[in-house]
Formats: sequence, C-alpha cells, structure tokens
Amino acid sequence: MHALKVTRAEDFPEWYQAVVREADLAENSPTRGSMIIKAWGMGLWERIHGELDRRIKETGHDNYYFPLLIPLSFFAKEAEHVEGFAKEMAVVTHHRLKQIDGVLKPDPDAELTEPLIIRPTSETIIGDAFSRWITSYRDLPLKLNQWANVMRWEMRTRLFLRTAEFLWQEGHTAHADEADAREETMLALELYRNLAEGFLAIPVAVGEKPENERFPGAVSTFSLEAMMQDGKALQAATSHYLGTNFAEAQNIRYQDKDGGSSLAHTTSWGMTTRMIGAAVMVHGDDDGMRVPPPAAPRQIVVVPMLRGKPEDDALKAYCASLVAELNKQTAFGEPLRAYVDAKDARPADKRWDWVRRGAPLICEIGPRDAANGQVTFIKRNALREGDKIKSHGLARADFIAQAPALLEAAHSEMFAEAKARLDANIRGDFKTFADLEAYYGTGDTEGEFRGWARVHWSRPTGAALEDVGNRLKALKLTIRNAPLTQPAAFGACIFTGAPAVEEILIARAY
Amino acid sequence: MHALKVTRAEDFPEWYQAVVREADLAENSPTRGSMIIKAWGMGLWERIHGELDRRIKETGHDNYYFPLLIPLSFFAKEAEHVEGFAKEMAVVTHHRLKQIDGVLKPDPDAELTEPLIIRPTSETIIGDAFSRWITSYRDLPLKLNQWANVMRWEMRTRLFLRTAEFLWQEGHTAHADEADAREETMLALELYRNLAEGFLAIPVAVGEKPENERFPGAVSTFSLEAMMQDGKALQAATSHYLGTNFAEAQNIRYQDKDGGSSLAHTTSWGMTTRMIGAAVMVHGDDDGMRVPPPAAPRQIVVVPMLRGKPEDDALKAYCASLVAELNKQTAFGEPLRAYVDAKDARPADKRWDWVRRGAPLICEIGPRDAANGQVTFIKRNALREGDKIKSHGLARADFIAQAPALLEAAHSEMFAEAKARLDANIRGDFKTFADLEAYYGTGDTEGEFRGWARVHWSRPTGAALEDVGNRLKALKLTIRNAPLTQPAAFGACIFTGAPAVEEILIARAY
Repeated sequence: MHALKVTRAEDFPEWYQAVVREADLAENSPTRGSMIIKAWGMGLWERIHGELDRRIKETGHDNYYFPLLIPLSFFAKEAEHVEGFAKEMAVVTHHRLKQIDGVLKPDPDAELTEPLIIRPTSETIIGDAFSRWITSYRDLPLKLNQWANVMRWEMRTRLFLRTAEFLWQEGHTAHADEADAREETMLALELYRNLAEGFLAIPVAVGEKPENERFPGAVSTFSLEAMMQDGKALQAATSHYLGTNFAEAQNIRYQDKDGGSSLAHTTSWGMTTRMIGAAVMVHGDDDGMRVPPPAAPRQIVVVPMLRGKPEDDALKAYCASLVAELNKQTAFGEPLRAYVDAKDARPADKRWDWVRRGAPLICEIGPRDAANGQVTFIKRNALREGDKIKSHGLARADFIAQAPALLEAAHSEMFAEAKARLDANIRGDFKTFADLEAYYGTGDTEGEFRGWARVHWSRPTGAALEDVGNRLKALKLTIRNAPLTQPAAFGACIFTGAPAVEEILIARAY
Repeated sequence: MHALKVTRAEDFPEWYQAVVREADLAENSPTRGSMIIKAWGMGLWERIHGELDRRIKETGHDNYYFPLLIPLSFFAKEAEHVEGFAKEMAVVTHHRLKQIDGVLKPDPDAELTEPLIIRPTSETIIGDAFSRWITSYRDLPLKLNQWANVMRWEMRTRLFLRTAEFLWQEGHTAHADEADAREETMLALELYRNLAEGFLAIPVAVGEKPENERFPGAVSTFSLEAMMQDGKALQAATSHYLGTNFAEAQNIRYQDKDGGSSLAHTTSWGMTTRMIGAAVMVHGDDDGMRVPPPAAPRQIVVVPMLRGKPEDDALKAYCASLVAELNKQTAFGEPLRAYVDAKDARPADKRWDWVRRGAPLICEIGPRDAANGQVTFIKRNALREGDKIKSHGLARADFIAQAPALLEAAHSEMFAEAKARLDANIRGDFKTFADLEAYYGTGDTEGEFRGWARVHWSRPTGAALEDVGNRLKALKLTIRNAPLTQPAAFGACIFTGAPAVEEILIARAY
C-alpha cells in the first residue's frame, strides 16, 4: 500500500497529476490554462529562485523589471520571432469594462489604438531599452536579468509542464562581439547545469538544439535535457546566442574604440517553473514527491505524537528545542531548515502529508523519545524496506550532529539514482533508421519505457532536416540536442547515410 | 552647486523625476503607463521584498501564486468591488495574432468566449479558491500571501507613485469570526508600520480611512500615511477587514464546531513599489536619493581613485580587502553589504553616481589612503557642511569596526529628521472650516508647503460625508485617516458643528 492511489507503473501521467495534487504543489485554476501554485510548490520555487538569483548576481548580472505588456508593433520587428510567437499570445484590446444592457462587457469606447501583448518573452522590449542605453563600447557588456510571469497560449496544458502563464527568469545581455556573447551563452548554460545537478539532483544532457528547434530569432540555442522516469525527455532550460538579429531589428549599436558604429551581439536564457515538474518526474515515487534536500523549504519536519494529554506539553517543548538546535546547524552552506508541525490534526495524517510532500527527513517524536532523549525518523529518499516503512533511531545529540550529513547523503543518493537511470537508458547501438523504428515502434508504444537514442548525425539542413523531422514524428520522437561532449570520430548518419559530424540525442519528450 | 539640476524648492515634481532618473531607479517605458525598474530601483525593491516577506512568513503566512488573468464574471460577484475597479482594468479579448492584409492584428477567429481581466487585485480569484479549500473550522485561519504584478489603468501616471502596472504583495486571509479577522487586519497594519519606520526610516500616521475612502467591498480600511517633503501625504500601505462581503459573494463557508454552517470573515492587505517613491520624497535631497541603510542594496561603496598607473594594482588590492573585511561585519542583524566600484570610468563620476543613488557611505580611496592604512569617506545622509562636501577620515581598522554603528546612526538620523518634519507640520489649531480654507487657500497654493491638519470630526456618513468631501475637494484636500491614537475628549466637528467622536488627518495627497 502506497500513499498515492496510482503508481508510476500503472499510469505515469495520472501518477504525475496525483503527486502534484497530493504534495500541495499546485492545482488547476478557473482561468483556463493557468495554475494556482500552492504553499509547498511556491516554497520550492522560492528556493530555486533564491539560489539561481544568487548565482546570476555573482556572475555580474543585475535584476531589472520590464513591462508585462508589449506594444504589438514590437513583435513585427524581428520576422522569425513574430512567426514563432504570434500564434499563441494573449492580446489586450480594451482598458475598461462597462455595463451594457445589464451585462459587464469591454467598453467599446475604451478600445486601445494599438493592442498590447502579454509578454511571451521579453527580447523585443528589452532590446528596445538596449538600443537607448547602449551608445559606446564602454556600455558593454550589459548583463541583466528579470524574474517575471510570462504567457503563451497553450491549448493542451499540464500543471508546471505546459501552462499558459508560468513564472521564469529571463537573462538578457548585449556584447561587443560574437566571442563574448557566445561565452555568456555558455556561462548561463553552465549556471543552469550546475543548478539542475548540484541543487535539484537532476542529471542533464547539455547540448545544442538542431536548427529547426531553435528559439525564434536565435543563431544557436542550447538546452538542458533531463530524463523522466517514463524515459521521456524534458527540456529543462535554454540559452540562446542571438547573433545580431535582434540588434539589427532594434538598432542596438555602439561606437567602438576606433569610433566606428557596430551592432551588438545579444543573448537570452531562461529557466521556468517547469523545473518543478521535472523534479517531480525525476524524483517522485509511489508515495509522492521527494524533494532534493538543498531545494526543500523544510528539510526536516518534526511531528510530535500528541495525544491530547497533559504530557503533550513536555513533548512539544522537546520538539521545539530539537528544532531550535537543528536550525543552528549548517547544511549545503546554509542554515539548516527544520520545522515542527504543530497543526491540530492526527499525527499519522501529518506524517503522510509530509511523506507525500517529500520533506527529506521526517521525525516522529513520541513521549518515549522525549523521555529517553531519542529521535525516531524516516528518510524520505529511502522510505521503505520491502513494503514496510523503515524507521531509524538516534540519540538526540547524534541526530543533531549528523543531520547535515544525513541531508547531504540523501542528496547524493538521489542524484546517483537519477544519474544511473539516465546513463543506463541512452542506447547508442542504432545503426539505421530501421533499427530506431523497430525499437520505438509507432504510436501505441508511447506508454512504455524506451529511454533515449544517441545516434550519428550528418547535420542536414532545410528540406532534408524537415524530412528527418517528419520521419521521427511518425515515431513520436524529436531531436533533443547534440551533446557538448562528443567522440573523436563518427560513422554514417542513420538518416542520410552521409558521414556524420556529431552525435545527437533523440527521444520522446514533454 | 548640487548634483541635480533642479532643487526641491524650485520645482518639487521636477526634482522627483530627476531623482528617479539620476539615481538609476526607473524610467518610462514605451508601454504607456508602465515603467522600467532599473538596477538600483530593483535592488531596493528586492530589499523591501526580502524583509517584508520574512516578516510575513514569521507571522504564519505562506506564499502562493494565483493566475494573472481573472475571468470577467468573477468581478460581477461583489457589487461594490466591480464598481470600484471596472473602470480601469486591462481586458484580454483574443489569444492569437494574424497577418491580415499584411498587418499584424488580433485574429478574429481567436476571440475569447469570456474576456479575461489582468488582475487589479486578487480578492475574487483567491476568494474562489478559499470557497473550495475551506470546509471546516479546522481549516481556519487560512493565511496566505502573494507577490505579484497588478494592473490598474491610470490616465495620469508618475513613476512609482501611479503606474498602470506595479509590483506588490497582497495578503489574503480567512477567519472564523470578526474578532480574529480584525486582529489579523491590525497585525498586517503593524507589519507595515514597522517596515516603514524601522526599515525605511519613514515615519507614518496609522489610522482608519473614512467610509468614502474604503477599498471597494471592505467594511474597514486602515492605512499608513507618510508626509513628503512638499508637505503632501502619500498612502503607503493599506489593510482591509472585508467582513463577510466577499465570503457571501463567493460562498466561503465552513462547518463550525457545533456542526452549523458559517460565513468566513476575510481580510486583505498590500504594500507596493510605491514605497520607493515615498522613500525618494521623504529622504531625497538636492543631490539625489538617500537610501535608508537597512534597505540599501549596497551600504558602503568603495571607489578606488585609479589613475591608469602601476600603483593601481596595490590600490585595487587595498579596496578589495577592505570590502572583504567590511562584509564580515554585521549591521541591522545581517551581514553588511559593501562593494568596490571597479567600473572603467572616472573616479569623480563614480562618486557622484553613488551620491545620486544615495549609497549610505561612500569611500574614496587614493594611493595615500592605501599607503597610510586610512579610509576617507562621506556620509550620504550628512553630505555637506554649508555648500561643501564633508569628508571624514578614519584609520582602516577603526572604519571597519565602526561601520555598523555609522550605518545605524545614519538610519536613526534619517528617521529623526523625517519624524521631526512630520511632527512639526501637523497643525491642530483649526477651529472652523473657514480656518482651514484660509490656511490652505484654493488651488494656486498647491505648490507651496502646507503640511497636514488634524481636526475634530463627528464622522458624518452618506450625503453629509459627500458634502464634506466636496468642500475639501475645492481646497484640493482629502481626509487621510483617523489615527489609531486619539485624545480622551473632543470638541465640535469643524464641518458639521456636531460633537466630534474622533480626530482626523486632512492633507493634500499623492
């Protein structure tokens, strides 16, 4: 018997929805396609936000805030960009409501001269500011970041993974030349890799997207790809070298050292609340979420086994002082975060709430523990032995002293588990497209675990690339990226038969 | 000669715009009515956000995130609420753009069945969630908070003070009864007062708004009112007891201990980026902004007097180690925030940049300081002696040791200066409305300093209150609030002649 009514093996998509709901992460809202992020989900996002923000600032970026609404005409400036986004944007056309025949409606007298778009991303409005702020090479590099909500109209939505509105961070930078801008693109990518692996215990494949998967208007797009427990890939973050495309469209020019006028080279890069969905699908189990300890809003939750009796007071005091001592410890370079759940509810219900939410260590403290100076606890990342919940006991002083190491071990174990899954499920032995077809099958195998393929690739472009895309689409596959780390020599491309120039990862994806 | 081209005395509104621009706080954007918050302004908001967020969490509130877009029908539920907001909301009517005759336009085939409103505030959509989440008295109190962008269509905008889009925090809570909800309303108000005074050094008058100034749908609205240097009032934050108005409109009911069904009592409360405008108008001087030290993103800025010569390296090293030592100190219960401005620019320009931005302590370190182990610095809150910049010197070790105390003293001095101004400029000697009229005059005195009036008030309602409002409007005055602290006895109301029941504050306001 597990804490969720559906297991990963039975129905992975249903299981995902159950974890998100039961772990108090998020729920659907009455606004079609948008979610309500609940306390534990928001706490997790705040942890990601705080950590990533610190690292972004340490690498010389300042936070700014740009308008939510972007004039329609701004999107018309960069041709590929508008093509990529125009089909899915929320459009503000009026600025007032009015009772008309007793019904509240947009006031026809308050129609905007120019419609405004809710930002799907902010290259256009930030590029406009860059064109005003940058005049000399002394103004470069200009490195900024924004934390914001953005909106892309999506027809089929899924909590965290694909919602109309989502929260994200978007970095935008301008540089004097390509080399500097490309260095920045890779720096952002490395920030993301480090956060995914070091903070969220999510191992990723880092590489460059093929041309048909680039951000609209980008010269190069790089991504992190993570493997979910159903074998599918999830794009976890992207970093784009935009060349001078946006600079040309928006006239971002600077006077160089020789007095000449040059176009700036720009980059943009983003990570979103989608990371929470990735963490669920990488770390969750049939008892709910398992939060990687550095990211957990509460790393150790103490549940006092209260019984509505006079000895409850002593038990509460024992738990409070335990938590106070724990919070003096340091884990992952920060003060440890322990918490007493003193809510008026049955202790067993509270324990299961925290199991479903995935607090890394859960202490259940009864009168006997208090009397004997003991701590009884469960490790969320190694919850069961066989079918049974495995409980651990330590002397109070030992538990306090060992708590940071217990959390750090849990983090390492979670990363190792996910890394082993990723490494074991990338097959490199496909020699022909027929091999790929035989393994992935068509359509009806989509619910089965397949993992990823790593194949030789001659990097076809244009119509040839489109043809590859169509052949893969029939197998519900897409090219994820060309990993940064490549072998020294290549065989023949499994699509074109031509000599390959790199290896690419192919997978079913979210 | 001051660092700004316009002084407060010459033209206060122009001076305000100059500070906001020159201190790198914000600028107007191409999106009508919305601003771009720049690095120093955003840093200040992040400091306010961080500190207020910590206090909100400490008092038992969890952060959530609700959708940006609210279905139109939600606003029709609470009659006063829709009346108060419907006139100034941004309306999304389409979800796609299309090239029509070569022009990018909202796609007529993508019109929404029900328009969506960009949240002006979130009572309606959060109340809807409350109605689903609350079933029993055990679910109460439910205390949550959201950090978000909101939008109210404003015709006349001014950076930070009144913009279409602004950033804020909105607390929303539900309680079993009026007493508990009113206690929460006052708790939030006290959080705000404490933040304004203790953190931002802005003294405030705390009290209840008259009925015609209440939040649409509220039973009671309380505010903080701060006095700007031109004598006008600025409403700095509000806290509302909503009674059961929203609970009735949205069916927020719970089963009480006796099994009966009761309506919940709700509250809401908010503080916005407007606080930055308040801080400018309370603390700024003719040299720019003066940031209260606890709120300063950088509390001590070190400018090395580099001269492009070989000894620059030693000077840089001296400054770097000075900052490293300073950052080991604690000020206001947090690690001190010092920073070396190593930008490639003239030292004198950098000094003036930091004067205009208002960094609390600015060190100018030349080769002689480095050689002698000295620190030369200016105190931004006491920048000049007569017309001259006043420079201070301390031995390096003394400066490091005294830095926290210097910052704390600057904070106390700034608060004392603003408090003295507030206290000295509330006149309580108006016996009749004619006195008020004589003092404030009509219209053309608006640019002159007048301060506030504290007058006796019989608390008229309905048409009588409306009449008072009109008489005050002719003098460009409004009732700000009835302070929480009141005398024991009252004279006659200066408007109605009836026995007064309280004193109220009257002022010109932003």
